[in-house]
Amino acid sequence: MDLDWNNLYAARMARVTASEIRELLKLLDRPEIISFAGGIPDTNLFPYDRIERAHERLFADKARRAQAFQYGISEGYRPLRQWIARHLGQHGAAVHADDILITNGSQQGIEFVAKLLISEGDKVIVTRPSYLGALQAFSAYGPDYVSVPIDEDGICLEPLEAALRQGAKLLYLVPDYGNPTGVTLSEERRPAVVELAARYGVPILEDAAYTHLCYDGDPLSPLLSYASPIKGGTPGEASVSGNVIYAGTFSKSMVPGLRVGWLVAPRAAMQKLVLVKQASDLCASQYAQMVLHDVVQDVFDEQADRLCDAYRERRDAMLEAIRRHFPQSIRWTEPKGGMFVWLELPEGLDGAEVLRRAIEEVQVAFVPGAAFFADRSGANTCRLSFSAVQPDRIREGVARLGNLFRRMTEELG
Amino acid sequence: MDLDWNNLYAARMARVTASEIRELLKLLDRPEIISFAGGIPDTNLFPYDRIERAHERLFADKARRAQAFQYGISEGYRPLRQWIARHLGQHGAAVHADDILITNGSQQGIEFVAKLLISEGDKVIVTRPSYLGALQAFSAYGPDYVSVPIDEDGICLEPLEAALRQGAKLLYLVPDYGNPTGVTLSEERRPAVVELAARYGVPILEDAAYTHLCYDGDPLSPLLSYASPIKGGTPGEASVSGNVIYAGTFSKSMVPGLRVGWLVAPRAAMQKLVLVKQASDLCASQYAQMVLHDVVQDVFDEQADRLCDAYRERRDAMLEAIRRHFPQSIRWTEPKGGMFVWLELPEGLDGAEVLRRAIEEVQVAFVPGAAFFADRSGANTCRLSFSAVQPDRIREGVARLGNLFRRMTEELG
Repeated sequence: MDLDWNNLYAARMARVTASEIRELLKLLDRPEIISFAGGIPDTNLFPYDRIERAHERLFADKARRAQAFQYGISEGYRPLRQWIARHLGQHGAAVHADDILITNGSQQGIEFVAKLLISEGDKVIVTRPSYLGALQAFSAYGPDYVSVPIDEDGICLEPLEAALRQGAKLLYLVPDYGNPTGVTLSEERRPAVVELAARYGVPILEDAAYTHLCYDGDPLSPLLSYASPIKGGTPGEASVSGNVIYAGTFSKSMVPGLRVGWLVAPRAAMQKLVLVKQASDLCASQYAQMVLHDVVQDVFDEQADRLCDAYRERRDAMLEAIRRHFPQSIRWTEPKGGMFVWLELPEGLDGAEVLRRAIEEVQVAFVPGAAFFADRSGANTCRLSFSAVQPDRIREGVARLGNLFRRMTEELG
Repeated sequence: MDLDWNNLYAARMARVTASEIRELLKLLDRPEIISFAGGIPDTNLFPYDRIERAHERLFADKARRAQAFQYGISEGYRPLRQWIARHLGQHGAAVHADDILITNGSQQGIEFVAKLLISEGDKVIVTRPSYLGALQAFSAYGPDYVSVPIDEDGICLEPLEAALRQGAKLLYLVPDYGNPTGVTLSEERRPAVVELAARYGVPILEDAAYTHLCYDGDPLSPLLSYASPIKGGTPGEASVSGNVIYAGTFSKSMVPGLRVGWLVAPRAAMQKLVLVKQASDLCASQYAQMVLHDVVQDVFDEQADRLCDAYRERRDAMLEAIRRHFPQSIRWTEPKGGMFVWLELPEGLDGAEVLRRAIEEVQVAFVPGAAFFADRSGANTCRLSFSAVQPDRIREGVARLGNLFRRMTEELG
């Protein structure tokens, strides 16, 4: 039989397609380009010395060294889970180490929740726009998306209730300084969102990737802290509440290169999620978990402060430059934390075309917004990231973009 | 609404269930127990000094250090993929770096192939018995298993053809020193298996986890080297052949604790698999990949020799003790490599019950074989692993097991 293997493979998972934008952005390593594209931390701010010390301490203890390079349990390195439980406790969510599963960054946590909860044709509620990586993880399982709009206080409650009423299997939210908009779900709306979702029996996946990058005021309590109790749960027994699953990560607060994040989930979900981890890749790297545990123990807050000071300055530089250089026809968000400013261009401008011209004419890159919309609306939007660019370059890049925007708006007539 | 969240989660993924054996074996850390249970490498043999040096070299170069702790591309660290391509080339399979995706151990490679190729109700051909972790990865996607028997030369060709004729979506094999049996697919059968599968249009997943643990003679060529060419492929252009996807790992040849393995796949499959990786956890740890790349470059063969010398001695100790102490009614495999000896007990003995008594009466542990059978046959089988036990303890443990087997066989009457 003369089989066409290419066609055989290409026909599988037809719903999983490459992001053209990601492919385009791979080409942007050229130094003359000021890139606001990558939502990545600044490597200059990583706690190298502390990681080095943790590594040396690990190698100085033969038993720990052996443990670091052997297989570990699928749940994850227990001392790290205990640290995370204490840490979340200090931020309003009472959690036990047994409620925590270590994952390869929060992306793997999102993927596991998708695998657990989404089957072909299930309704999944996302914000318009929403994190691209979550959409990619969900899409592999074939959901029908219900997109709910946001305003400056986060997801809008009336359309959310209308969506919940349709019988969704999951509500996905990035409450703090969301990717891609930088918008934060307000303190007032948080209990209302959790209560609404609970009323309709819909689990919430709270993606807390940016939670520690808080530049103004105090961080808000996570949705997890408002979650409804599990029916029949024994009071005082360790188990998180029923309807919120929480995905955290050290990629933004520490380093992405060790790939350590975590899920917090109710026991019944956690039992399945541990099996999903086992079947997916057996366990997380023990070495990465042990090194990070050593590091976070004494420098977590200090490192968060350091990051916030640096990124706050960059955010301020970007917003000041935007106010100064962008034409009136452009709207932008004013994030209180995170890595992103979100732009709405005049109707008729297309983000992908603007990017093409921005690279060619003013040597600036960003991410066109359409990929963040499950319903493929939002062609006239863009995401700018300020986290990995120095303030001077931010000012220069925004000024250049302002010139282009002015030109393109005038061309629109 | 007073929803029962526990029931909501427990009802999801009902087909994913915990391995009772894995749960039982978790309790076996007691030092008085001689454990042949875990299929794990010996931490005493890990190349710590070389890892330490790689770490120091990485930290001595600021640009590489920054790269190590940042996000990487989903495909994986290119120099490591280039090394793997050269390495496979030396072992008979012509492969390009672009045909390789870095995964978190080979388990993640198996899971990705399952996600790509298996939908609910699809037929998947496995050997009877087969690697438990692969069955767990496949089962999440709801296949119908077709179990094919093996003999001392590996999978049996006539029943294999009968199975292929039924129209399967995947054939999964561990050709070298398979987990759990230690059996190797013979040199004669290899081209026949690949040709048969190609004739029926069924992709093969070749799990090469134990390939480098070869104790007698030379390693055999991988199935990948016999794979049929892709129709329409340009000769000389980098692309592996059509019908074999290959999962490799550094967990057995180097260390499991860094979680680095790889997939080799034809281009059309690779395009999808890279997207699956992106949606699953964005990328592998750059740090782990860069350290391993540094280490394998100059000590791979030396380390493989070191492991083979140590494990060969343990295998010999186990087989000699088995010949000496086991009653005639017990059959065992004589592996040429890997980590496992497989036992068939007399009909009527149940591996799980034998394990319970082995722990209680003679303080020896192993893995009962039933979990390795997709069709749940094989209750009278056991897997013994010799890789992490010293020869003296192996002899002692096998002698004790021999006593128990003798007792239990006599009780059978």
